Amino acid sequence: MQGDFIPLWLGIDIGGTKVALALGDEQGALLAQRRRPSRTTGHPERDLAELADEARALCAEAGVSLSDVRGVGVSVPGPLDPESGELLNPPNLPGWTRVPVRRLLAERLGLPVYVENDANAAALAEWRFGAGRGFQHVVYLTMSTGVGAGLVLAGRLYTGKHGAAGEVGHAPVAWDGEPCACGARGCLEAYVGGAAWTRRLARTTPVTSRVAALAGAPERARPEHVVAAAREGDAFALAELARYNDYLARGLTSLVFVLAPEVVILGTIPSAAGEQLCLAPVRAQVLARVWPVLGRELRIVASGLGPRLPFLAGICVGIEATLP
Amino acid sequence: MQGDFIPLWLGIDIGGTKVALALGDEQGALLAQRRRPSRTTGHPERDLAELADEARALCAEAGVSLSDVRGVGVSVPGPLDPESGELLNPPNLPGWTRVPVRRLLAERLGLPVYVENDANAAALAEWRFGAGRGFQHVVYLTMSTGVGAGLVLAGRLYTGKHGAAGEVGHAPVAWDGEPCACGARGCLEAYVGGAAWTRRLARTTPVTSRVAALAGAPERARPEHVVAAAREGDAFALAELARYNDYLARGLTSLVFVLAPEVVILGTIPSAAGEQLCLAPVRAQVLARVWPVLGRELRIVASGLGPRLPFLAGICVGIEATLP
Repeated sequence: MQGDFIPLWLGIDIGGTKVALALGDEQGALLAQRRRPSRTTGHPERDLAELADEARALCAEAGVSLSDVRGVGVSVPGPLDPESGELLNPPNLPGWTRVPVRRLLAERLGLPVYVENDANAAALAEWRFGAGRGFQHVVYLTMSTGVGAGLVLAGRLYTGKHGAAGEVGHAPVAWDGEPCACGARGCLEAYVGGAAWTRRLARTTPVTSRVAALAGAPERARPEHVVAAAREGDAFALAELARYNDYLARGLTSLVFVLAPEVVILGTIPSAAGEQLCLAPVRAQVLARVWPVLGRELRIVASGLGPRLPFLAGICVGIEATLP
Repeated sequence: MQGDFIPLWLGIDIGGTKVALALGDEQGALLAQRRRPSRTTGHPERDLAELADEARALCAEAGVSLSDVRGVGVSVPGPLDPESGELLNPPNLPGWTRVPVRRLLAERLGLPVYVENDANAAALAEWRFGAGRGFQHVVYLTMSTGVGAGLVLAGRLYTGKHGAAGEVGHAPVAWDGEPCACGARGCLEAYVGGAAWTRRLARTTPVTSRVAALAGAPERARPEHVVAAAREGDAFALAELARYNDYLARGLTSLVFVLAPEVVILGTIPSAAGEQLCLAPVRAQVLARVWPVLGRELRIVASGLGPRLPFLAGICVGIEATLP
């Protein structure tokens, strides 16, 4: 691959539960990859030094010299200071407060380092190599614990003032509605965020439902149990999914009227629930509400990269940051 | 001015009630201008030929040869086919169906012609010469009969798929709420569009209110009567404005979470109502709801161009279209 002079990148995806590292090229080919559970020692400097060592090991494994790598792209949970590359206080990485990810990794690896939040990184990867490939206007929604969007508009990542664009999880879908973890009410995330849904399920899951049976107990019910029970036809699970789809469609309707995207890619929970239980009903509701010029060719789809996403996310952050 | 080699543009703003023509340069200086009521003869070709003659006359008046003009920028009411420069079926220009504005004007004037919808054209003008000057992320909201947005994102006009982005007037602010002229329910425009508000006022204005007195009769009440009566402290008018501001703030909250703009410029009705009756309360409500990173430096302001806007709108369409 190196012989073809396709630039090589190290990609690092730092998540709340898993870390993924990859060495790959600008065409999306992966030369080496590694995924493991996140370990936060409470000493972010030490954690990042370990990541840098793993990145070196990955290069060695692939027979690639660090000096042949163009740079390092990193995907981190927000919030992030886009100018300094500092992670501020990500709720999913306890102990990581104002961590200068860019500087620390650059010192350790001697390479330029580029950092983006996970929604933006995923949007870039899906746009470049996944379900958004070939389009100019692509919205990617992270839909796991929280809800956020990465926006590729007119063929470039759009991040807005202070890199804070895409916080669609906190756009209101029901004014003065359900309380959200952010302190406000009626946020999209309060209805379709995995954490919010899990809290709701603990309150509402009937003991006799299939959801409770799969989870072991109502208070242990999680979105994946709802999806599994819905596949078996459980009435409570189907009603919960219908509610999820309804609020997701509300949020998407606003996004489509504002941004006129060509593709909306729905992350973890909708991708796992799949076409019949989530994507088709959400698509139908959005198309029933938006204007034909906006809906006619609109694609509302699952992630196209699946398990490859975390390996490509960081790499795509690097590619985007070094475009002219 | 020509001696300085600052390119000259003809700008034409075709509105439902007025037409504005201007000859100006790329720094916003106007050499000649004309504004008159719209006349639609039912023969758009004839109307456009008249506009072309007026544009020629404007150049003659300023002592500028057409061959010294770089091109013509045109602002039209939507919807518009951005590829062909055809006006489709603007509700405010009866008889204009699939009118090839670009082609007809180009044939008549022998100049390149660029066409944009009015919200986009106004956004470009406010960004380049008005309240959005010097910023990268600017939202302009037309707020007269209807509601729409022009989006300048990362320093370029963003128009999305089929040029249809910015239809924020039809993003839902109250799911299944008030019926909208578009056929859906709960659209922002159903609450803060001038036409929708006028219909509501005809139903709700008390005979004894100052609004009815100013309008002559409740069924003739319009937004400008509400603003005037509110200035005099009329309770009904103040309640109506509070409702207007409340729904406008809901719509802006979503926009801010999605786009993280630096400036939101509010068009006709809020600009006319002014700081105390509209801008300050809307700003306070939005800032109470959005995150500090989004709200801290956010400007929510009136149009900075006022009566100069229609003269600069078309010119800015031309400038933007010919940027590299």
